[in-house]
Amino acid sequence: MGYKGLLERIGQVNDLLCSKSLLSWDARTMMPPGGATTRAKQLATLQLFARDHLVSNETRRLLDMAEGEIAHLPEDSVERTMCAQVREAIDYHLKIPAELVERRAEMGSKGQHVWAKARADNDYAAFAPVLEETFELNRKMADCIGYEDHPYDALMYRFEPGETIASLQPLFASLRQGLIPLLKDIGEKESPRVDFLQRPFPVDKQLGFALKMARKLGYDTDRGRLDLTVHPFEISFTRNDVRITTRVNDEWMPKSLFGTLHETGHGMYEQYCDPDYTRTPFATDLIGLYAVGGVSFGAHESQSRLFENHVGRSREFWELNYGELHDTFPEQLAGIDVETFWRAINRVEPGFIRVESDELTYDFHIMLRVDLEAALIDGSLSVAELPDAWNAKVKEYLGLDVPNNQLGVLQDVHWSSGQVGTFCNYTIGNVMAGQLFHEAKKEGPVGEGLATANYAPLREWMTEHVHRHGRRYTREQLLENATGQGLEPSFYIEHLTSKYSEIYGLAS
Amino acid sequence: MGYKGLLERIGQVNDLLCSKSLLSWDARTMMPPGGATTRAKQLATLQLFARDHLVSNETRRLLDMAEGEIAHLPEDSVERTMCAQVREAIDYHLKIPAELVERRAEMGSKGQHVWAKARADNDYAAFAPVLEETFELNRKMADCIGYEDHPYDALMYRFEPGETIASLQPLFASLRQGLIPLLKDIGEKESPRVDFLQRPFPVDKQLGFALKMARKLGYDTDRGRLDLTVHPFEISFTRNDVRITTRVNDEWMPKSLFGTLHETGHGMYEQYCDPDYTRTPFATDLIGLYAVGGVSFGAHESQSRLFENHVGRSREFWELNYGELHDTFPEQLAGIDVETFWRAINRVEPGFIRVESDELTYDFHIMLRVDLEAALIDGSLSVAELPDAWNAKVKEYLGLDVPNNQLGVLQDVHWSSGQVGTFCNYTIGNVMAGQLFHEAKKEGPVGEGLATANYAPLREWMTEHVHRHGRRYTREQLLENATGQGLEPSFYIEHLTSKYSEIYGLAS
Repeated sequence: MGYKGLLERIGQVNDLLCSKSLLSWDARTMMPPGGATTRAKQLATLQLFARDHLVSNETRRLLDMAEGEIAHLPEDSVERTMCAQVREAIDYHLKIPAELVERRAEMGSKGQHVWAKARADNDYAAFAPVLEETFELNRKMADCIGYEDHPYDALMYRFEPGETIASLQPLFASLRQGLIPLLKDIGEKESPRVDFLQRPFPVDKQLGFALKMARKLGYDTDRGRLDLTVHPFEISFTRNDVRITTRVNDEWMPKSLFGTLHETGHGMYEQYCDPDYTRTPFATDLIGLYAVGGVSFGAHESQSRLFENHVGRSREFWELNYGELHDTFPEQLAGIDVETFWRAINRVEPGFIRVESDELTYDFHIMLRVDLEAALIDGSLSVAELPDAWNAKVKEYLGLDVPNNQLGVLQDVHWSSGQVGTFCNYTIGNVMAGQLFHEAKKEGPVGEGLATANYAPLREWMTEHVHRHGRRYTREQLLENATGQGLEPSFYIEHLTSKYSEIYGLAS
Repeated sequence: MGYKGLLERIGQVNDLLCSKSLLSWDARTMMPPGGATTRAKQLATLQLFARDHLVSNETRRLLDMAEGEIAHLPEDSVERTMCAQVREAIDYHLKIPAELVERRAEMGSKGQHVWAKARADNDYAAFAPVLEETFELNRKMADCIGYEDHPYDALMYRFEPGETIASLQPLFASLRQGLIPLLKDIGEKESPRVDFLQRPFPVDKQLGFALKMARKLGYDTDRGRLDLTVHPFEISFTRNDVRITTRVNDEWMPKSLFGTLHETGHGMYEQYCDPDYTRTPFATDLIGLYAVGGVSFGAHESQSRLFENHVGRSREFWELNYGELHDTFPEQLAGIDVETFWRAINRVEPGFIRVESDELTYDFHIMLRVDLEAALIDGSLSVAELPDAWNAKVKEYLGLDVPNNQLGVLQDVHWSSGQVGTFCNYTIGNVMAGQLFHEAKKEGPVGEGLATANYAPLREWMTEHVHRHGRRYTREQLLENATGQGLEPSFYIEHLTSKYSEIYGLAS
């Protein structure tokens, strides 16, 4: 009775969070401009009700009962794992005082206006007070949540449970060691031509082709749809309705295509979660209060980066699919062969803006942010010192001189909405993607499929080893089960080294 | 403290109901097919949370406090009216046992499948058990809610508070007396030609023109949008986001156009509610648990019918706007003058199907349903006798012999979803529209505006006398304040008599 009742309560929490996600999707795709103010209130209410329902006396009473009922089952049984996750989430929320939750929510709307204006005006001083408040608030959050070594660990817990500054440092060191020389070598070579990607490509044809590729990779449009937004994203309201968006620049074609393939990877993680987990803790982030089946933000990013980069930017993929692209855009791609196209979509060019960076330089944007966030949280860096520290890191990692704060420390929205601790996921996703793709290709049908434009075996391998488990295992358990080891960057570094050596004619 | 706290609780109820409405809108416009099962659960959870939050101990405690705080204010003050409405709604919900609420919700999904199949198979016997359960359930609901004269009064209360069988009977008698002879006279005349409306009209141009007219009438697309659906509807998530839909038949142009004008009337009722009433009881149907600012379903229908029929099907409207329509469809309307067009869109043709009926015959479809529903509820008619009773009424009112139950008693979805008592609103809306339009035209600027295609004064008159009040006044108070009298059908009958006499060349 207790266990069954508990699952129904969590099902309702999931219903509220799915509703909230739908309201967010609508706000970014369909809502007329006038709807913004009351929509914000509706979102806040759904969030509050989900949180309150989760930590309510009745849910806790049912959890106590459930734990008694299932105590005889193995510790790693579905039932005990679900109960342990609910217990962990309730404890987490009860540690954070309502006052802090409210202040964070307020910052979410207030800070973004200040940031948007400060960025437009290139006025760091105007944004500095928001940053002060964001980091002070997050220090308080970290103290409430608790940590062993570093307060930043407590903040990453919500996005990448188990990750710590101590575990990230050797990972980042390996990446720097492997990638900085590669980047330097590339810088000495001639850049591939990309001019033909800047020709006008009709928007509807771009979307049509992108969706065709998404379906070819396994995205199920009976349980999904593709729309246009300013920033691409994936969002789901149970596995039965998983939507993706992309943006279109009619003079930079890769944007919509690779945006779609990226979100396709995210989308399939949700679509192929075990249906038995629908509305359960294994398909609900009860810590972050978000209806999601992926086990961590990094694990989620592994799927998007795998389908975007390891599949979608590979020579093999375009050898099989370029014909169709060429048929779709015969004028724009006139005289361009597959080799030229493939080299163009893999051009490396260090730049100032994270969201516009290429596959190789992306991680440097991440590492510098993680380093700076951690230093701001532990007090070893002040908000006043931040721009100089930022610019020094960009120089160190990318060899660039940041000309102004607009192109530097003011570029990201995250801090203005009170979020600290999310950036590491991108790099963890890249590293995991390298491991998982390496492992998957060992299986005959996966490799054969990639060589014949049949992507079902790859998708099925990912479903078997990643998607279907939802949040049942931790990220590290999932990786161990799938690849025999925890997070290990060598496969990712090897992937980048090998691809770029080929493109840029480097000695390997 | 109590009053302020109470309003915040009701604001949250409104947030939940607006969220529920957005999920409904999405399910009918955007949702991929796979989303249906979990969407139903999300809708049910939002409904349950809204109801439980409204009747919760905390809301009742705040209401008790609030009533004390504001006892010194006049009885018709905003504050006391709001509190009285919350008290009334809580009392209403507490009268209905949870078991009945659940059974009704279950019927909502279960019955519709049975009905859809029974209608497709023309198999009344297959649907009869659902009807038995629907009416038995509604008799129980009526007993719980309570009534003075007739159990049907208790069922209408949710949709048209204050309306009773006793009050409807003289209204219906007047309509029959005024309209049956008119219909008979028309039947003896030649029908206007409509062939040119059946030519192919491109869908996007139909939508473009319809939306242009909607905006001309006052629909604000900064706080709204128009989409395509199988059945047209209007739905709102506060006055800041009020959406309408229409359906398009590319060979029967009036469908999308008048569907849009109809929903435009509904939409403007919501868009022009007093902004101070947002998220309050005056913009929330706490009895029906629906986020709506209109005071009753009938009052809402008065606005849709007014803009669809009194404005949109008038000779004056087309004399001013037909040029633009003709420019949009020069081939389809080649050789058709405004007089011919206006006569065509006003053709009267008695038919079997309510939703396809014209302005004049619509009320007969309503009256027969109300009569039969009331008889089924009080037991004077049995489910077995229903088809014959239906067919006899159609013969009496419309002079037609119903060939089968598909075209008769099986046509409406309402009963299959457990709903009884909603039909009278359509006729009340027609009658109210006649009164309000008659009154509005007395004001100089309104009449001048109608004569010069400036619809702002009419919309402003409706806002002043209807829209802005939301649910503050009862329907009868609203009508008294706006027109000096309660529901009075003579204006509506006069409108129909005068228009159709002109079109069909009847002696007046």
